[in-house]
Amino acid sequence: MTNDPKNDTAGKVQDWWSTQIIDMKPGEIRYRGYAIEELIGNIGYAEMIWLMLRGELPATGQAELLEIALMSAVDHGPQAPGIAIARMSVTCGIGLNNALASGINALGDVHGGAGEQAVDFYNEIRAGMTKEDDIELTVERALNTFFSTGGKYIPGFGHRFHPVDPRATRLLELVDLAAGAGHVTGEYATIGRTIEASLESLKGRRIPMNIDGATAVIYAELGFPAPLARGLFCLSRSVGILAHAWEQTQQGGRNKGPIPRDMIWTYSGHPPRKLPGS
Amino acid sequence: MTNDPKNDTAGKVQDWWSTQIIDMKPGEIRYRGYAIEELIGNIGYAEMIWLMLRGELPATGQAELLEIALMSAVDHGPQAPGIAIARMSVTCGIGLNNALASGINALGDVHGGAGEQAVDFYNEIRAGMTKEDDIELTVERALNTFFSTGGKYIPGFGHRFHPVDPRATRLLELVDLAAGAGHVTGEYATIGRTIEASLESLKGRRIPMNIDGATAVIYAELGFPAPLARGLFCLSRSVGILAHAWEQTQQGGRNKGPIPRDMIWTYSGHPPRKLPGS
Amino acid sequence: MTNDPKNDTAGKVQDWWSTQIIDMKPGEIRYRGYAIEELIGNIGYAEMIWLMLRGELPATGQAELLEIALMSAVDHGPQAPGIAIARMSVTCGIGLNNALASGINALGDVHGGAGEQAVDFYNEIRAGMTKEDDIELTVERALNTFFSTGGKYIPGFGHRFHPVDPRATRLLELVDLAAGAGHVTGEYATIGRTIEASLESLKGRRIPMNIDGATAVIYAELGFPAPLARGLFCLSRSVGILAHAWEQTQQGGRNKGPIPRDMIWTYSGHPPRKLPGS
Amino acid sequence: MTNDPKNDTAGKVQDWWSTQIIDMKPGEIRYRGYAIEELIGNIGYAEMIWLMLRGELPATGQAELLEIALMSAVDHGPQAPGIAIARMSVTCGIGLNNALASGINALGDVHGGAGEQAVDFYNEIRAGMTKEDDIELTVERALNTFFSTGGKYIPGFGHRFHPVDPRATRLLELVDLAAGAGHVTGEYATIGRTIEASLESLKGRRIPMNIDGATAVIYAELGFPAPLARGLFCLSRSVGILAHAWEQTQQGGRNKGPIPRDMIWTYSGHPPRKLPGS
Repeated sequence: MTNDPKNDTAGKVQDWWSTQIIDMKPGEIRYRGYAIEELIGNIGYAEMIWLMLRGELPATGQAELLEIALMSAVDHGPQAPGIAIARMSVTCGIGLNNALASGINALGDVHGGAGEQAVDFYNEIRAGMTKEDDIELTVERALNTFFSTGGKYIPGFGHRFHPVDPRATRLLELVDLAAGAGHVTGEYATIGRTIEASLESLKGRRIPMNIDGATAVIYAELGFPAPLARGLFCLSRSVGILAHAWEQTQQGGRNKGPIPRDMIWTYSGHPPRKLPGS
Repeated sequence: MTNDPKNDTAGKVQDWWSTQIIDMKPGEIRYRGYAIEELIGNIGYAEMIWLMLRGELPATGQAELLEIALMSAVDHGPQAPGIAIARMSVTCGIGLNNALASGINALGDVHGGAGEQAVDFYNEIRAGMTKEDDIELTVERALNTFFSTGGKYIPGFGHRFHPVDPRATRLLELVDLAAGAGHVTGEYATIGRTIEASLESLKGRRIPMNIDGATAVIYAELGFPAPLARGLFCLSRSVGILAHAWEQTQQGGRNKGPIPRDMIWTYSGHPPRKLPGS
Repeated sequence: MTNDPKNDTAGKVQDWWSTQIIDMKPGEIRYRGYAIEELIGNIGYAEMIWLMLRGELPATGQAELLEIALMSAVDHGPQAPGIAIARMSVTCGIGLNNALASGINALGDVHGGAGEQAVDFYNEIRAGMTKEDDIELTVERALNTFFSTGGKYIPGFGHRFHPVDPRATRLLELVDLAAGAGHVTGEYATIGRTIEASLESLKGRRIPMNIDGATAVIYAELGFPAPLARGLFCLSRSVGILAHAWEQTQQGGRNKGPIPRDMIWTYSGHPPRKLPGS
Repeated sequence: MTNDPKNDTAGKVQDWWSTQIIDMKPGEIRYRGYAIEELIGNIGYAEMIWLMLRGELPATGQAELLEIALMSAVDHGPQAPGIAIARMSVTCGIGLNNALASGINALGDVHGGAGEQAVDFYNEIRAGMTKEDDIELTVERALNTFFSTGGKYIPGFGHRFHPVDPRATRLLELVDLAAGAGHVTGEYATIGRTIEASLESLKGRRIPMNIDGATAVIYAELGFPAPLARGLFCLSRSVGILAHAWEQTQQGGRNKGPIPRDMIWTYSGHPPRKLPGS
């Protein structure tokens, strides 16, 4: 349990699983150097998540903002594939952990990736700004590049169902407060709002920031690398997946298909035929 | 979106996905009746988890105890199968969500079920008590039944690696504080401690309560049904799985096997042979 | 790569992953002792499956029957949860392998376990027979025990959708042929048919054998342990899951929910309310 | 169950799950138009896989080649992450279906994608050939483009462990036979061999075709789109994953970690520290 690479076989095997996250001896567990019995009761869940992912404890204002992002995206109802998958899964006789797994598994680029893509997009814009005052221009350029290279949806903006996403507005307000209090700089909130404004003049209609765009603002303000925006969304959405899987368990049902049992799919394939030579 | 079952086709389809958790209209999202924009910034992550799973908001003392349980079980290092699986998975070219899924999938009866089983065992003991003062007797009887019917490990007690689990001691202290403050009754802490004492006299050596036994005390004190002890553990452990998957992503590696590449498994099967008739 | 347990560290690590299935040296791969380059082109896919699971090559008649069971259960359409889950999953931006995984994950006790349970039930009946001629009595006793101890559905019999399962009839015919040719004994076919007859007189209506009951007859005739009936069903159903996941990929769609997008679930929970104290 | 889109609600719901693969009525199941009871016993497993994925029955020579590809890639031992994951998973108390799922889930771009990438690469080369005789030139150009644009490993060529892959040589021989018999054209075998030769002169050492490159030749010869090379590999590798999960079940073990229990990972993180302010 030292930092030095080992040359013997045992050491090679131990190094194969090397980690900076957790250290263990019999009767002793430390995360990032802190003893678990000291952490318990002294830091909150959001702080623990931050410590595990980032290696250091967050400031209070940072932990609060992370907690807000996590609690804001827990569920989007049974029409969301991840939720429906978990509900169907528990009726097949597998455990809550297995149903949770299949729901989370579905949080791919399309269903769970918008936050990650938005953080990337924000960072690209931020990196492209040479002076503080050219943000409109930089955003405009980024949008034009995006659409001219085949992009269809700016990640984190627009919603199929909600004309305005009530979560985004509220989240941005809280980022403003945190920026006012000096917990974050607020520059990603500015980038996000500039995208929204620029999109509107480009498209001639409002395409408002959605929950993914807003949580991406928070994750970017807090310095999380883009892939962790996806990871944190998975943690958050797990709550909703679990709640729905549990509700379905209580509702009962066996082999719940997507639609009521007496409805069968449309068959649009080859008409009945005999095997060749039969 | 009313409570009345519908007779028409559209209604039947909508009822097929009926839920009490979330209501949505364009621009409006409510969880358990509360508008999301009111919840955001006013309740914490643990309160949101409680609301989603239980249908009502917790009291502050309850939310604090839930948060403590959630933050205490996030990780047990790369030797834990769920963690190792996720670390190996990311090196195979799948996303963080997919790696998280396979890690959580492994939290079955043996790897993630002890908390659930402990809540069940505590509840069974509690239901078997006729008067407040016969707890020792009831526990003794339950342990005898457990072992005489083939049970091997009392769920939530004993640990392969830790002679004393530093998490359990600390968690029980916090339950005592919460009981003192009237947030919980403390009766499951008593049941847990009685099991520990009774196990010691029965087996002639200390088999101390572990993290699963201690979080089960908390979940039972808070009134969670046993299966949700598993569900909540999955949420908690997801944090560690994600942290390790992310660390592995940064370490790199392709198709990381369980042991260093130049070590190959022991083959213990049939010696080389030719196909019959060849 | 010998059979002797090793005492050194390297040996212990290698023994941790000990297997009788596959042996490898640079440029050499052997399954159960046979060189891969000899197996390729000389044995079929069903024979390979048998070799991997059982350790020895099957006789031709056995391999044919296994192949029949495998090809008969590949799909039951988009109302089956495993299929629907995979179709929804690919629209979320995850790979075919991930969609396949979530579909297979759903093949639990209720959705994929009937074959395993049927093999168990058949074996129990077979073990309970003392003389060849008391099969009716043994089956009757087993059914009575099953129902009197709370059992609801005899695994492998009856179908929600099909009054008679066209696959079962055909499969039993082929078992009869194989028994006639001496490839199997046919005793499990007899057990299966006796259950069907006994169920009918017990319940006063026909509850015909279904695909799971019929493939279980085959797997039991071939000597597969019960859990492998589940495993083989998973292999078989993977084909349908893949076909549907691929068709959905070609149909396109993003975040496909269970029902058309303009249909929303019935909300049956708490009416709108304000946060306490707000 | 007609081809016409329906305008009513029921029709819209049914169309949402439209498929060309399977048609069902009570007592009737048809795949691609063929009744299941006709298929059973008359077509093999490989033919069924082809029918499900392609919509039509294969010619006998095509089915034979598909079967060969499927049986050749079932397993690569416990050092392969997919296999290790499944073995560890069953010791956690989850079912064979769940363990299979997590194993398959790992067959991502790095662990299961080489076949798909190779088919893409072959097709790109084929599309770039203007006359039959310029294949060397086209391949050389493709390789140069590949390496000059940051590519590191030509998919399907080279192997970390095997200096020559005994499976590839044998598979190519069988493609030659099939081409000689007119079942396939053999042009992808030529492309594959040309890549191998061209790679050798480019790199100054032999980087032989591996199992993925060879099965990709077969899948491309048979006209499978590239993503199905991945899908078919998943079906194939499922066999090995199942065999190992089953062997592990019989070996027993609880919460099997990646290395023997008395070996703990190297901790390379922050030294022990106290919480700030404590």
